[in-house]
Amino acid sequence: MEQKRYGFGKWVALAYEQAVERIRQSLQQEGFGVLTEIDVRKVMKEKRGVEFRPYLILGACNPPLAHQALEAELDLGLLLPCNVVVYAEGNGSVIEAMDPELMVQVVGNPALEPIAREAKQRLQRAIERVAAEA
Amino acid sequence: MEQKRYGFGKWVALAYEQAVERIRQSLQQEGFGVLTEIDVRKVMKEKRGVEFRPYLILGACNPPLAHQALEAELDLGLLLPCNVVVYAEGNGSVIEAMDPELMVQVVGNPALEPIAREAKQRLQRAIERVAAEA
Repeated sequence: MEQKRYGFGKWVALAYEQAVERIRQSLQQEGFGVLTEIDVRKVMKEKRGVEFRPYLILGACNPPLAHQALEAELDLGLLLPCNVVVYAEGNGSVIEAMDPELMVQVVGNPALEPIAREAKQRLQRAIERVAAEA
Repeated sequence: MEQKRYGFGKWVALAYEQAVERIRQSLQQEGFGVLTEIDVRKVMKEKRGVEFRPYLILGACNPPLAHQALEAELDLGLLLPCNVVVYAEGNGSVIEAMDPELMVQVVGNPALEPIAREAKQRLQRAIERVAAEA
């Protein structure tokens, strides 16, 4: 797993459509529902008239964790849901997730730390599972 | 406008439904489309069986700015779109937005700074407009 400045993820040897399908299933196994989806390629085509690589932003939400987090910090909706991104790269795909622990550092509310840690572990497992089966 | 740690916003003397309608229009006037919506109250009811205050997370996207931002930083989808939150508070509503300038500090890519500054100014104007007309 590659840790980046504000997320973590992995290149996987899966075509984009396959990577999208697998990460959806894997997120579900970790208790995340996908509440929102943005097809960036489509938005860029329709609103900007440009070609963009296949690129999807999934808004993943684990309801028990989100509930705890919002009880601890009402304004946290500003940083929810957890974004999971899939895009085509070379002859495979990149799958990556926003780092909830880092986001919580920005927020500065210690009550959120264990919740963010659990969310991060679940997101890491979701991505690792797809990579392991690719 | 109250600047918070990771966002900015205002309490307005509008009922929740009105606040939602007005901020939608005002975001549109600043070139933001609403690409995603999460009715937090509904999610909490359906997935957790709990009552939560009226609370909406709007994913606002200004396509020209998003396009520039993604060209400068491919992984930025992890932090897009810009969340705008509306929730009921007392006999009015809070409207607030994620602070794009702060997010860009986390990313650490100077090419994003002018884009984030413009996004922030537009989001501030969108909220100020609703507050001024409330």
